[in-house]
Amino acid sequence: MTKKTINLKSAIKKQFRSQRQIGKAPGTITYMGNREDGKYAVTVIDYSEDLFDFQTLTKVEDALTFKEQVNVTWFNVYGLSNEKEIDKLGNYFNINPLVLEDIVNTNQRPKIDEYDDYVFATLKMLYLDKDYEIATEHCAIILCENNVLLFQEIELDVFEGVRDRIKNKYGRIRTRQSDYLFFALIDAIIDQYFVVTENIAAKIDALEEEVYNHPDQATAEKIQKLKKEVLSVRKWVVPVKDLVNRIIESEHHLITKETKLFLRDALDHSIQIHENIQLYRELITNLMEVYMTNMSNKMNEVMKVLTIIATIFIPLTFIAGVYGMNFRNMPELEYRYGYHVVLGLMLVIFILMVLYFKRKRWF
Amino acid sequence: MTKKTINLKSAIKKQFRSQRQIGKAPGTITYMGNREDGKYAVTVIDYSEDLFDFQTLTKVEDALTFKEQVNVTWFNVYGLSNEKEIDKLGNYFNINPLVLEDIVNTNQRPKIDEYDDYVFATLKMLYLDKDYEIATEHCAIILCENNVLLFQEIELDVFEGVRDRIKNKYGRIRTRQSDYLFFALIDAIIDQYFVVTENIAAKIDALEEEVYNHPDQATAEKIQKLKKEVLSVRKWVVPVKDLVNRIIESEHHLITKETKLFLRDALDHSIQIHENIQLYRELITNLMEVYMTNMSNKMNEVMKVLTIIATIFIPLTFIAGVYGMNFRNMPELEYRYGYHVVLGLMLVIFILMVLYFKRKRWF
Amino acid sequence: MTKKTINLKSAIKKQFRSQRQIGKAPGTITYMGNREDGKYAVTVIDYSEDLFDFQTLTKVEDALTFKEQVNVTWFNVYGLSNEKEIDKLGNYFNINPLVLEDIVNTNQRPKIDEYDDYVFATLKMLYLDKDYEIATEHCAIILCENNVLLFQEIELDVFEGVRDRIKNKYGRIRTRQSDYLFFALIDAIIDQYFVVTENIAAKIDALEEEVYNHPDQATAEKIQKLKKEVLSVRKWVVPVKDLVNRIIESEHHLITKETKLFLRDALDHSIQIHENIQLYRELITNLMEVYMTNMSNKMNEVMKVLTIIATIFIPLTFIAGVYGMNFRNMPELEYRYGYHVVLGLMLVIFILMVLYFKRKRWF
Amino acid sequence: MTKKTINLKSAIKKQFRSQRQIGKAPGTITYMGNREDGKYAVTVIDYSEDLFDFQTLTKVEDALTFKEQVNVTWFNVYGLSNEKEIDKLGNYFNINPLVLEDIVNTNQRPKIDEYDDYVFATLKMLYLDKDYEIATEHCAIILCENNVLLFQEIELDVFEGVRDRIKNKYGRIRTRQSDYLFFALIDAIIDQYFVVTENIAAKIDALEEEVYNHPDQATAEKIQKLKKEVLSVRKWVVPVKDLVNRIIESEHHLITKETKLFLRDALDHSIQIHENIQLYRELITNLMEVYMTNMSNKMNEVMKVLTIIATIFIPLTFIAGVYGMNFRNMPELEYRYGYHVVLGLMLVIFILMVLYFKRKRWF
Amino acid sequence: MTKKTINLKSAIKKQFRSQRQIGKAPGTITYMGNREDGKYAVTVIDYSEDLFDFQTLTKVEDALTFKEQVNVTWFNVYGLSNEKEIDKLGNYFNINPLVLEDIVNTNQRPKIDEYDDYVFATLKMLYLDKDYEIATEHCAIILCENNVLLFQEIELDVFEGVRDRIKNKYGRIRTRQSDYLFFALIDAIIDQYFVVTENIAAKIDALEEEVYNHPDQATAEKIQKLKKEVLSVRKWVVPVKDLVNRIIESEHHLITKETKLFLRDALDHSIQIHENIQLYRELITNLMEVYMTNMSNKMNEVMKVLTIIATIFIPLTFIAGVYGMNFRNMPELEYRYGYHVVLGLMLVIFILMVLYFKRKRWF
Repeated sequence: MTKKTINLKSAIKKQFRSQRQIGKAPGTITYMGNREDGKYAVTVIDYSEDLFDFQTLTKVEDALTFKEQVNVTWFNVYGLSNEKEIDKLGNYFNINPLVLEDIVNTNQRPKIDEYDDYVFATLKMLYLDKDYEIATEHCAIILCENNVLLFQEIELDVFEGVRDRIKNKYGRIRTRQSDYLFFALIDAIIDQYFVVTENIAAKIDALEEEVYNHPDQATAEKIQKLKKEVLSVRKWVVPVKDLVNRIIESEHHLITKETKLFLRDALDHSIQIHENIQLYRELITNLMEVYMTNMSNKMNEVMKVLTIIATIFIPLTFIAGVYGMNFRNMPELEYRYGYHVVLGLMLVIFILMVLYFKRKRWF
Repeated sequence: MTKKTINLKSAIKKQFRSQRQIGKAPGTITYMGNREDGKYAVTVIDYSEDLFDFQTLTKVEDALTFKEQVNVTWFNVYGLSNEKEIDKLGNYFNINPLVLEDIVNTNQRPKIDEYDDYVFATLKMLYLDKDYEIATEHCAIILCENNVLLFQEIELDVFEGVRDRIKNKYGRIRTRQSDYLFFALIDAIIDQYFVVTENIAAKIDALEEEVYNHPDQATAEKIQKLKKEVLSVRKWVVPVKDLVNRIIESEHHLITKETKLFLRDALDHSIQIHENIQLYRELITNLMEVYMTNMSNKMNEVMKVLTIIATIFIPLTFIAGVYGMNFRNMPELEYRYGYHVVLGLMLVIFILMVLYFKRKRWF
Repeated sequence: MTKKTINLKSAIKKQFRSQRQIGKAPGTITYMGNREDGKYAVTVIDYSEDLFDFQTLTKVEDALTFKEQVNVTWFNVYGLSNEKEIDKLGNYFNINPLVLEDIVNTNQRPKIDEYDDYVFATLKMLYLDKDYEIATEHCAIILCENNVLLFQEIELDVFEGVRDRIKNKYGRIRTRQSDYLFFALIDAIIDQYFVVTENIAAKIDALEEEVYNHPDQATAEKIQKLKKEVLSVRKWVVPVKDLVNRIIESEHHLITKETKLFLRDALDHSIQIHENIQLYRELITNLMEVYMTNMSNKMNEVMKVLTIIATIFIPLTFIAGVYGMNFRNMPELEYRYGYHVVLGLMLVIFILMVLYFKRKRWF
Repeated sequence: MTKKTINLKSAIKKQFRSQRQIGKAPGTITYMGNREDGKYAVTVIDYSEDLFDFQTLTKVEDALTFKEQVNVTWFNVYGLSNEKEIDKLGNYFNINPLVLEDIVNTNQRPKIDEYDDYVFATLKMLYLDKDYEIATEHCAIILCENNVLLFQEIELDVFEGVRDRIKNKYGRIRTRQSDYLFFALIDAIIDQYFVVTENIAAKIDALEEEVYNHPDQATAEKIQKLKKEVLSVRKWVVPVKDLVNRIIESEHHLITKETKLFLRDALDHSIQIHENIQLYRELITNLMEVYMTNMSNKMNEVMKVLTIIATIFIPLTFIAGVYGMNFRNMPELEYRYGYHVVLGLMLVIFILMVLYFKRKRWF
Repeated sequence: MTKKTINLKSAIKKQFRSQRQIGKAPGTITYMGNREDGKYAVTVIDYSEDLFDFQTLTKVEDALTFKEQVNVTWFNVYGLSNEKEIDKLGNYFNINPLVLEDIVNTNQRPKIDEYDDYVFATLKMLYLDKDYEIATEHCAIILCENNVLLFQEIELDVFEGVRDRIKNKYGRIRTRQSDYLFFALIDAIIDQYFVVTENIAAKIDALEEEVYNHPDQATAEKIQKLKKEVLSVRKWVVPVKDLVNRIIESEHHLITKETKLFLRDALDHSIQIHENIQLYRELITNLMEVYMTNMSNKMNEVMKVLTIIATIFIPLTFIAGVYGMNFRNMPELEYRYGYHVVLGLMLVIFILMVLYFKRKRWF
């Protein structure tokens, strides 16, 4: 009971947090996450085919020097709780306040919005943390002419591969425009989804083994927990399919036909992710069904044991009870072999019963 | 039995109420709610970038003076049971009788209708009342040139934030036209849906804790009650997605391209609400499944206890019964250690049984 | 066994009835209902803004005099089993035989068909009969220039409101053309659906109360009966949404733009009806689930009582059995306080058992 | 075990049969049915408004004489296992080998294909055999200019009505072109589906009666068997809706606008069939649910009887056991009315128990 | 417990394997299968109407000589783990790196991609291995002008029929262009799906027989295993429908109108496959339901046996217990026929009980 009160309180607290946003004017920048330490940093990767530069911005104003260059510049913003700095940065790039609001809204659903001068996408990074548990991080990407702005909460991310490819000139990334970087970031996020779905697949395998070989009461809870996990992964992952599709169908001048070819591949991956998740849901439902069937078969077995024992011994006990009565005049008691006859009778009943159950295939 | 009769009567009464409408000509204004006290008031907020005026209308005729001005005017009508006054107001603004019928029909499904001179939208406000229970209020909004008419049943509403923003010149609302106010009102309603869905999420969390740790018979009823609540919220909330989408795709002259940008954001929120509600339904279904599994596991456990006790003691009791028989000639009874041998035999059977159940993992 | 045979026979009889139609040429007029008394009557309401006339046609030829006039004329045909008369009437109005076939086919699915000179719609009237049970009546409407032909089986119908409005000049019906009458009839039918769905809602409420407070074996059957009722209502009601939508999107010259505005309202109602029915289905499924959970909880309770009693007394009875054995050498029997020690031992076992069950929260 | 092996063998055999087709070039004519007796016959009905001729073709070459005439000619081919003759006939009419392949493929899904000179449709005839069981026959129809070719396996079919109408000049069939005959054949097939669905409906009624009044273990199997039957009917019947719709939307020169009017009617019927089948599936699911609930209620009742008896008599037997012990010093045994007091005590316990169960409403 | 750890490890290992791909630049060729022996071979079938040539390529450079000819050339690449050779071959044909990546990605979802000079399709071959188990092989096909490149993992494949038809000039394949070969390969793959679905159908039949006649605990696991198998088949087979449809709707210059006619047939087959799989899923769900019902009926039967025995003998044993008490003053014990009267009483109770159960139809 006290537990429930605590839960209700936490519920109210939760509502309070999100109510910070509610009632405010649209376009008000309000951080919705739970990392309010105000940490904030911007790193810059500036590159062209021949050039590579990596810096940490000390003043947001320095962003302007990179903005005007023809080189592709990747601004990587860490920390979303510093609403003021993000507002300032957004103004330098003429970003619509509605977009800035979505950047810091960590509950924002994956989506893509096109504006005249830029394209805005927001997704969730999913990855496995140190304990091989699925972790979620909010992430927002803005594609401008020659610039890509990436906003994330913490320094841990899924983009190390992209940074390596830029730094070491792997693949074709150094020779392409900002829209290819934009694609590469989204592609890196989607790629990581496969790690997550394979982690789910592995958990399903482990649970399947458990269900078939040594199910106990905890098994059902594990299955249901996994089901919930799949549901929450699906929530973030399914809209990505539409997102990528809309970039492909977009006619925005910043997105080149060549990059769309690569996006088609990313679309394909997101469809595959989607199908996998559907499959996992069905597999988990199956698993639960197997578990329930097993439980019910066990119950059946327990009932059979009870029934066999009771059905055999209750009548025998009755017979013993009859000859344990103290009537003065019970002729059988006086017979020389009365006792042996009764014992024999009991044995016959016992054997008949056993045969009956055998024929019924109860054991 | 008497209970059922009472219910049937209330059913008939209900039908009677809604039958007031049935059979009448379309466009007949008939109040369908249950607050028939006839309370009725109209407040007016009149504003432009430099001007702010708040009044309570005493005569409906005064509305005309505001109607003609270039300032944006927000007419807020409280109380829908006064059919005559609403009819009069509607005539001043040339509102189609079909619209007036929908305004006072508190069972009206959320929808949007475009007319030549105005756009009509009706939705439900959802909010948490003092006991943190979900409450519903009917609400209708008409967007005219320079005017917005808002109809609601009681003074409690979700628009305080909008009024503040107008009064205190927060955000951009004072610089925009009536269509931005129209959007701001719809946005305020949708924003409040998040409070409601988070309340549902909190209840699911609390119930989940209950199901896993101390389920009882009331738990199932709580889950089903919550499921019903989600169903009724969904009924009012799901059509809003289409509603907002139709405003965005509308080509009505009163809705500017700039406001559509904001509406895109509202659309996004309503999609998110929809997805949340779908998710909650699945979570609740899961919860019920967990509950059923727990119950069935408990039953299993009860059966096992019964079976273990019965299976061990019924055969032993039978043996005791045999040696309680009164046959004259029962040689074992005369043996010196007959009693001790039988006791030993019983102990052996007891131990064998226990080992059998151990091997079967019954405890 | 005999029962099943009877059922099969009725099944064959049924097939026979519908086979009257099968194998015939398309466009053959074959009455499919079960009111074959041949009763047949035609009433005429003839009106314009200034004129109102009500007659009962004695000869079908008289229809022609009304047909040519500019006034709107509503021909109301009662009784569909008189195939010859309907054929004759159809010929006067140049109605396609396929349409006539559908008019008398009481199993016809709701649909709309446009022909060059007329529009044909068929729906089902649903209403509550005297015992508040849901009744269904077949109904067909033909919209011609200046004329509306309405075909129904019996005189009981849902159009009294429309007749009143024409007679008493309520609303705008007297000032409009035949397409408004056409709409008004469809609207009256749809309006009545609300009475039916509210009746279902009331039954759900009553059953809910029964399930929670005093469920018995009959409850499940009542729930399933209601579910079946909802399914059969849905069958007739769901196609109406498409039907109305197709009239709205039709470009038939007989349907004016003004009437389409009203049809939009009817569409809205039919969507709401559809949503309600979906909701009721889910509520009924919920109800069944609650019922099953209640039953299973009751079973649990029964099992617990059995287990507690058996688990406490079976071991005690065993002890009593041991000391009821007749061995000559049983030293405990000779002890002075042997009996009292054993009674005490039994009491201790009893208390331990009760404590065990308390800790298990079995009572 | 042996059973399973047999099944597996039959499975392999089945695969063998269909593998006859697999690996061959597309357009290879391979009979897939199981009536390989090679029986083959072609009848010809040749008609115009004034002419009617019925023949049995002895040589396939004679078909050519009919082919060129302006009269409508209906070639009816019985027997599909004679691949050579069908190939020959197909060549006379310039039929694509792919079409000929589909004609003899009795597993072919219902579909329509348009070619330059002809339209090809394949469906399944469903009808009730002598034992009122649902039977399926493959059927293929080709519409050419002035000719219709109908292919079926056996002489039993659903087209007697069409033949009658041609022979006896019923309806309009003699005055129309080959496309009307094409429609009439499809219409006859669809009409027959109603007989089948009504047979299903009758079986549902009979099973419903059985479930409510005298369910036994066989009932569940009957329900499941019916469910399977509905699934297999659905498989053949559902694609027909699309098939008819595609003829209506087709712009093939052989299909006249007038015939499309009739096809609209057939479309309507196929939609109704589809809806009926959906409804039956839901009704059968309901039925199964009712059955399960009944079973579970019965189980409850059995458990109650057991619990009542055991709970009443186990404690009483314990008391009797106590006073059956043989301790030397048991003072109660010596009391004058000890026996009567104990009997009274037992009666009191008995009555208390009965009252307890009454209050619990267990009987 | 140790088991679970092992599973988790294998899960991590699995992730490791697929992570080889993740983080790399798009277009990097990374083999994803599990046949890393590096085996690699290319065979060439070169044909025109009059010419047939079969070779095994020793150097990949030789491919160029075939490439330029007007004859249709079918390059068949066995072994996908040799990434270098595939890259080289790809370069000769100007294949996009993204395509090469998909060719060696054995987890790739079936899809079709059109490029300017070629069309790329990837599907899964499904066939039955020696133990009649369903096996899956990755397969990729590229259609170029005059050339078709086929990539597969092992030499076992489903294309023997196509090779035969080319070699022996069966059918029309030798007279057509490369797009017909492309179609023929896809058609051969789809044809083989029928073997797989019929294998599933046969397993369902066998399981059905088992469920109805001798279900045991293993049956449920077999059903669930089959269900999982169907799910995994569906995963690879369902996208093929869209794939074929997209080729048909494609306007790529390499795909001729004539071949599209044949593709329509393949589309038809893939739709039928899809429908079959849906049907199998429903049949398996039914099967599981029957199984559960059977189990629950068996449980019922067990409970009845227990209840009958216990209910009859517990009261009788109680009576025997009463007359086994050792009270000094128990007058009945002294009666001459006390014993016989009690025996008679027991018999009467026994008979009454049996009659009661008979009336309840418990046996």
